[in-house]
Amino acid sequence: MITTLDCVPCLIRQSIEASGFTSDDYSLREKALREILRKISESDLTVSPPVIARDIHRALRDLCGSTDPYCEVKKKFNSLIMSMADRFRKIITGSDDPLLTAVKLAIAGNVIDSGVKSGLTEQEVIASIESSFSETISGDTDYFISRLSDAKKILYIADNAGEIVFDRLLIELLDPGKVILAVRGFPVINDATVDDAESVGLDRLVSVIQSGSDVPGTLLDDCTEEFSRIFREADLVVAKGQGNYETLCDEERDIFFLLKVKCHVIAAHTGLPAGTHAVILNKHGIKG
Amino acid sequence: MITTLDCVPCLIRQSIEASGFTSDDYSLREKALREILRKISESDLTVSPPVIARDIHRALRDLCGSTDPYCEVKKKFNSLIMSMADRFRKIITGSDDPLLTAVKLAIAGNVIDSGVKSGLTEQEVIASIESSFSETISGDTDYFISRLSDAKKILYIADNAGEIVFDRLLIELLDPGKVILAVRGFPVINDATVDDAESVGLDRLVSVIQSGSDVPGTLLDDCTEEFSRIFREADLVVAKGQGNYETLCDEERDIFFLLKVKCHVIAAHTGLPAGTHAVILNKHGIKG
Repeated sequence: MITTLDCVPCLIRQSIEASGFTSDDYSLREKALREILRKISESDLTVSPPVIARDIHRALRDLCGSTDPYCEVKKKFNSLIMSMADRFRKIITGSDDPLLTAVKLAIAGNVIDSGVKSGLTEQEVIASIESSFSETISGDTDYFISRLSDAKKILYIADNAGEIVFDRLLIELLDPGKVILAVRGFPVINDATVDDAESVGLDRLVSVIQSGSDVPGTLLDDCTEEFSRIFREADLVVAKGQGNYETLCDEERDIFFLLKVKCHVIAAHTGLPAGTHAVILNKHGIKG
Repeated sequence: MITTLDCVPCLIRQSIEASGFTSDDYSLREKALREILRKISESDLTVSPPVIARDIHRALRDLCGSTDPYCEVKKKFNSLIMSMADRFRKIITGSDDPLLTAVKLAIAGNVIDSGVKSGLTEQEVIASIESSFSETISGDTDYFISRLSDAKKILYIADNAGEIVFDRLLIELLDPGKVILAVRGFPVINDATVDDAESVGLDRLVSVIQSGSDVPGTLLDDCTEEFSRIFREADLVVAKGQGNYETLCDEERDIFFLLKVKCHVIAAHTGLPAGTHAVILNKHGIKG
């Protein structure tokens, strides 16, 4: 999907938050903002929002000198959700439909998205997760779960740090030999990298690969050959969050997007109201 | 106050909404957005946000060709609140403290601000006003009401269309001969102009003057001599909303700001949480 006009203020807001995590020097942050504004004013907006975000965050890295502004944020949310993991694991295994409950939690965990919301607090995350138990999931959930159970090779493309603990809880219910977990190739916003996968023990459970890209999404042209091959060969691709949706929704293979609809641009694109927890089979997907 | 980095995405979001009210031509709106981004990238950000907004909306008028994008929005909210005015008038006169109730409603009406929130709906406005009856007002309310009762000459600087119906309900409780109502000199966002004052009958109640400026706030250097004289000579200046606060808060005379705190920049500047309904005496004001 393209970058709409309404994506632009959000991308700018996001860059201001990122520069704040990088530097206390207001004049440097103002200089960076001016450079970002100029850059977007000249950008091709027919690319997806995560591609614009990649270019913004590359510029910020050059201007502000930090390779990983969200390092502490990511550690905080990994630790927070890991400290709650046993509780959630019990809720999953004690529920009538553990796989459905784990899917619900994996979607609820998608609230941990610094790309969409600045200054996300632990309280907001916990409240969102608590409320998810009573949340209905829109979309192709039953079909997704049947495909998940039948698949021989699953590519699971993670989204954010912290959230990947919920991905782990879902993956624990699957045959680990079937699952390959993909994370971003380089730190960008609070997206999960191999460090995050390792810190929540996912590397000891399943194969972990890197996209090879610093796009906060999955731009196949930017990914490694290994990633692209696995993407093509997998029986099932699961992709978490808006960044993956924005970059992959037009791909010509079936992909299940698990996400929380967090802005009116994605609400308009999916036809689901903002706030919806959804399993979305992409338009080229084979319906159940 | 200056334009902070965090004001920039909001100003841009606002310009995108305004261009949407002006034109259905996406490529023209994209061109306008690129021009606005370039313009802000080169702007002096030591001025207040409404001054940047003035420059943005001047550029939009040139680029998109509409002198009053919010014309229909303003009419809609004037009509909506006028249709409810008798009900609110009864609530005010039937309350234990009519002046306090009218002040509460005048602040609640400040929710009708297209500058801060895109796509404001009638339902959101009605819900906010209904909840205001149970809302506590932070700040110098008692002192404000005593000054309001004692003043011989009151300059009341309005903010938005629709909201001015609530201003009227408050002004009806005062001696009309004492009050001069000021509105913007030209249409900008959904700020009230003389047309709005006339359409809700304020011109038949009190003297109405125009600021002479197209700033969505009150930049004295941009106002007429008449406005500046009245501003200096008034016993009491009442200024509604964030735009007036942002432009007047550093002025060296006492001013009472009546507003709803609508963003974290104003929350940080006032020390009041976002969502607060407040009467704020400016820092140079003579305390009660």
